[in-house]
Amino acid sequence: MDLLSIKDPSFLKNLSNKELEELGREVRQFLIEKLSVTGGHIGPNLGVVELTIALHKCFDSPKDKFLWDVGHQSYVHKILTGRACQFDTLRQYKGLCGFPKMAESEHDVWETGHSSTSLSAAMGMAIARDLKGESSCIIPIIGDGALTGGMALEALNHIGHEKKKLIVILNDNEMSIAPNVGAMHNMLGRLRTAGKYHWVKDELEYLLKKIPAIGGQLAATAERIKDSLKYLFVSGIFFEELGFTYLGPVDGHDYDALFENLAYAKKQEGPVLLHVITKKGKGYNPAESDKIGTWHGTGPYKMETGDFVKPDLSPPAWSKLVSETVRKMAREDERIVAVTPAMPVGSKLEGFASEFPDRMIDVGIAEQHAATFAAGLATQKMKPFLAIYSTFLQRAYDQVVHDICRQNLNVFIGIDRAGLVGADGETHQGVFDIAFLRHLPNMVLMMPKDENEGQHMVNTAIHYDDGPIAMRYPRGNGLGVPLDDELKLIPIGSWEVLRKGEDGAILTFGTTIAMAMEAANILQKQGISIKVVNARFIKPLDEKMLTEILNKNMPILTIEEAVLQGGFGSFVLETVHDLGFGHVEIDRMGIPDKFIEHGSVDKLLQEIGMTTEDVVLRMQKLARKKQKRA
Amino acid sequence: MDLLSIKDPSFLKNLSNKELEELGREVRQFLIEKLSVTGGHIGPNLGVVELTIALHKCFDSPKDKFLWDVGHQSYVHKILTGRACQFDTLRQYKGLCGFPKMAESEHDVWETGHSSTSLSAAMGMAIARDLKGESSCIIPIIGDGALTGGMALEALNHIGHEKKKLIVILNDNEMSIAPNVGAMHNMLGRLRTAGKYHWVKDELEYLLKKIPAIGGQLAATAERIKDSLKYLFVSGIFFEELGFTYLGPVDGHDYDALFENLAYAKKQEGPVLLHVITKKGKGYNPAESDKIGTWHGTGPYKMETGDFVKPDLSPPAWSKLVSETVRKMAREDERIVAVTPAMPVGSKLEGFASEFPDRMIDVGIAEQHAATFAAGLATQKMKPFLAIYSTFLQRAYDQVVHDICRQNLNVFIGIDRAGLVGADGETHQGVFDIAFLRHLPNMVLMMPKDENEGQHMVNTAIHYDDGPIAMRYPRGNGLGVPLDDELKLIPIGSWEVLRKGEDGAILTFGTTIAMAMEAANILQKQGISIKVVNARFIKPLDEKMLTEILNKNMPILTIEEAVLQGGFGSFVLETVHDLGFGHVEIDRMGIPDKFIEHGSVDKLLQEIGMTTEDVVLRMQKLARKKQKRA
Repeated sequence: MDLLSIKDPSFLKNLSNKELEELGREVRQFLIEKLSVTGGHIGPNLGVVELTIALHKCFDSPKDKFLWDVGHQSYVHKILTGRACQFDTLRQYKGLCGFPKMAESEHDVWETGHSSTSLSAAMGMAIARDLKGESSCIIPIIGDGALTGGMALEALNHIGHEKKKLIVILNDNEMSIAPNVGAMHNMLGRLRTAGKYHWVKDELEYLLKKIPAIGGQLAATAERIKDSLKYLFVSGIFFEELGFTYLGPVDGHDYDALFENLAYAKKQEGPVLLHVITKKGKGYNPAESDKIGTWHGTGPYKMETGDFVKPDLSPPAWSKLVSETVRKMAREDERIVAVTPAMPVGSKLEGFASEFPDRMIDVGIAEQHAATFAAGLATQKMKPFLAIYSTFLQRAYDQVVHDICRQNLNVFIGIDRAGLVGADGETHQGVFDIAFLRHLPNMVLMMPKDENEGQHMVNTAIHYDDGPIAMRYPRGNGLGVPLDDELKLIPIGSWEVLRKGEDGAILTFGTTIAMAMEAANILQKQGISIKVVNARFIKPLDEKMLTEILNKNMPILTIEEAVLQGGFGSFVLETVHDLGFGHVEIDRMGIPDKFIEHGSVDKLLQEIGMTTEDVVLRMQKLARKKQKRA
Repeated sequence: MDLLSIKDPSFLKNLSNKELEELGREVRQFLIEKLSVTGGHIGPNLGVVELTIALHKCFDSPKDKFLWDVGHQSYVHKILTGRACQFDTLRQYKGLCGFPKMAESEHDVWETGHSSTSLSAAMGMAIARDLKGESSCIIPIIGDGALTGGMALEALNHIGHEKKKLIVILNDNEMSIAPNVGAMHNMLGRLRTAGKYHWVKDELEYLLKKIPAIGGQLAATAERIKDSLKYLFVSGIFFEELGFTYLGPVDGHDYDALFENLAYAKKQEGPVLLHVITKKGKGYNPAESDKIGTWHGTGPYKMETGDFVKPDLSPPAWSKLVSETVRKMAREDERIVAVTPAMPVGSKLEGFASEFPDRMIDVGIAEQHAATFAAGLATQKMKPFLAIYSTFLQRAYDQVVHDICRQNLNVFIGIDRAGLVGADGETHQGVFDIAFLRHLPNMVLMMPKDENEGQHMVNTAIHYDDGPIAMRYPRGNGLGVPLDDELKLIPIGSWEVLRKGEDGAILTFGTTIAMAMEAANILQKQGISIKVVNARFIKPLDEKMLTEILNKNMPILTIEEAVLQGGFGSFVLETVHDLGFGHVEIDRMGIPDKFIEHGSVDKLLQEIGMTTEDVVLRMQKLARKKQKRA
């Protein structure tokens, strides 16, 4: 059928299994084709084709509510709810979002991006439904990886207690982004191999109820025997113990099995966990045979071969530069341990892991635990390197405050994907970290201008013994500068003058240094001489250098690819006033007070007025103001 | 024996059970006496007297490491490690900390305050120990309430997977601060009633191993029967499924049982969870018979009767004012639902709970889930009121960013205990919330000057339909002002002039308004006329009023009982510069860039230079500067 003509999922009700199979094939072909051009989360979506079709056939969205945990597996759902025609713009500026988005469709009832939120939200919806006396099914779909995130476990504990009607679909594909780790993963593995789901449960419960109540010690024993018998016939005792009715495991690519289980789940009064086994990348050979997560999310690829159409990757990716420098240092320093919350591939820690398997700890999707676990290592004089994306570090804020900074422990936090990240959009922009870290006592926060400075900063961080230290680095590749053979130490809190000037100063760091330098060159031709400072230490600031600039009465423009409110420029303002230079003209460029959607970083910077041209204009204005005053 | 003479726990090794019983009695008497004067966490500590003595007798601290989760139950540990003589200063300025503190003793190896951190830290220590080839026992002691915090569950998942030697003591007293909720709590309840712990496990494992391996479908069935038999004899299948050896339940007041189990736990290679049943408040009748958590932590009391020696409490506590206003509104508005993460008593929600049992949801210690659960309610047009302490909101930072603010949902966050909290000290100071909330798009943040404004703000928040709105309020009692009968709406973003003046302006809100008014009165007598503004909206600022002040070139002093970096004063500076008034003299008073320890709020404010006198001095200085310029 013509996927582009789908308006809503109602057409599914009349389709036979054979027609559904055909639909599934078409959806797969569509995804493989479209994503080969745009890139996107191909693996997760190929895995849930039948599951998504079955859900939309068995339930009535949007009255029944699907909550896609993490949300990168919502493409099939988007196709079935009338958005196939937008896939050419997937994850592009003003185009289709790669995650559920309420503004796109009434069928998107909960927006995601970060993992493990769906169960909590679903519980909120279920309580609201019952208070309002309405009836609908609330169906969070959560992966086995996301299930071990702390807040999902908190939600399981609450759901199992309240006994509200709720159908949790556990989409078990044995991988989150990387292969999963953790005791629950092992437990799910045992369930998978334990064979078919068991329908005897109802009868068993009936039989058990027939056993007459017995008083005293015998009662406990009888209870125990009942529980034991239950375990003999019922899978998923872990979930049953938490108050769920466990169903499964069921083959997520078998329509009949899905229909049967969904229908059964629908009839239950309390919470159900339906364990569905799917195959990530199903139906596309390169993705299906992926064992390490390469096909979780990709850029464009050649459809026939599965070869990636990569841009020129000669400069190393920032993640790799950082991880490989840590690896190099780990050869000399046995105290170094790398910690990742389920991102060994994204953080390019494969090399470290193969060389130091005992010193590379993947804790799974568990950012809170990762941070405090690193703190625990640090109490024992180890040197933990916590590699974590800026946006995911948000989830460990309290652990950074309470465990790491308060105890002033030597944890080195590698803040990956800092700044705008592009296609993943507003849930993933790494723009808050400066504002949520720089007010923490004891924290050192820095960002390098290029890979060479980056490696020296890693060296500086590992040698730093006075407390926590964090280094931000952006998504993507470095500049391709040559790397010094010998690692150096950068004095904590020291800035660097990149360009001399008298008429004004730009203070910036990391990726935005390039536009500052360009702007300074343009301004030079206009007779305006601008000093450009690599403000590589965001905290502490280089007060000495700042004072020198202030003493010369130079107007200052700060630039940061991060939120303005409470950010670096804000810190400069505070310091300027504390130093008694409030009269100096200061302008701050950065991300305004709104969430920034998906699109290429260049487009986004243009939208928010952060281009070389903007720098030129704002610097001209500042210089004019100074002239007026003089 | 003389508890004051104890230097370290080594003396325990030679004591008989009878002597230990006597010691326990003395420790209890000591605690009941001392805390009747100072106040403190009496209930939790009376519950762990035997457990703490047994731990110190069976292990060798500090080589073996005890991690006290939350940490308010560490008093007995403090007595046994040579700190009995400091109990007169408990929780007082420069006195003994109410939580573990590394600076106090080498026996405190991990500092706590917030819950659920001990397992993660213990895992870090265990990995460090094994990497260094050392041998020691790592023993986190965690309550049944803290165990359901998400990060503790993340840690269980990791520990069970890695199989490191670790002894988790589950201190099950059926209460956290309030009675516990949640499915795990129910599960523990079943374990408690299931009877004695079972030593047959070893033999059973041996027998099961004798069953020969079988191939094909039969293998799965055999595996299942084995598991089922195991469940028949072994308690705690939930923890066993997670990879732990479960021991218990054991009576936490029975030395022999404790010794036997601890010795057994010590011999195991992998992770052990020892389920210990204790009685909160044991040995002191008023505390032992407490069912709702009144005796969790108290102020001074009369030892003989258990009557509290309360200061005059005529003005209502802030928590009560807020909760009761929400309750009043809930009578008219069915959409209002109250959510608390295990703090129904602290947040004074008992009245709301008894009147609207279905609309009061205690999710247990689970701040992340609480926030996103509230967001889920809001998607369904309910009006969630999330009552949460400022310091614990830190743990839901990502949920506030990603789920509440990003989706712009109408969640009303009641930020209780905002500002300095006093005796609980640095882990509990509510001083970061402005800095971690004000950079979030869509967030409205306010703080009332008194109870009457407080009730109008609650009304304003409930009627606000444009996204998240948060109201800070301090620990303790209000001012005792009369309350209007009718609730009003306060225009969002509006400040209020409390006192007119021409020579300078003080912008402040909440508790610090009093010192601003006092200082203005003193300055008036010196001929300096100061405008005092109730800057009740921290975000958005009242730009109109601010501009008026700036237009008059008045120097400005901002005062906030919160961190200066990125705080309210910082926001004023940003706005002042954005509005083009950088030349105006601005001084910011607030909490400097360090963690603030325990002590009375007055003492702490004095220490950091936040008194009426300081306000006078700094305002004088600003006024002089203005005169100089003029």
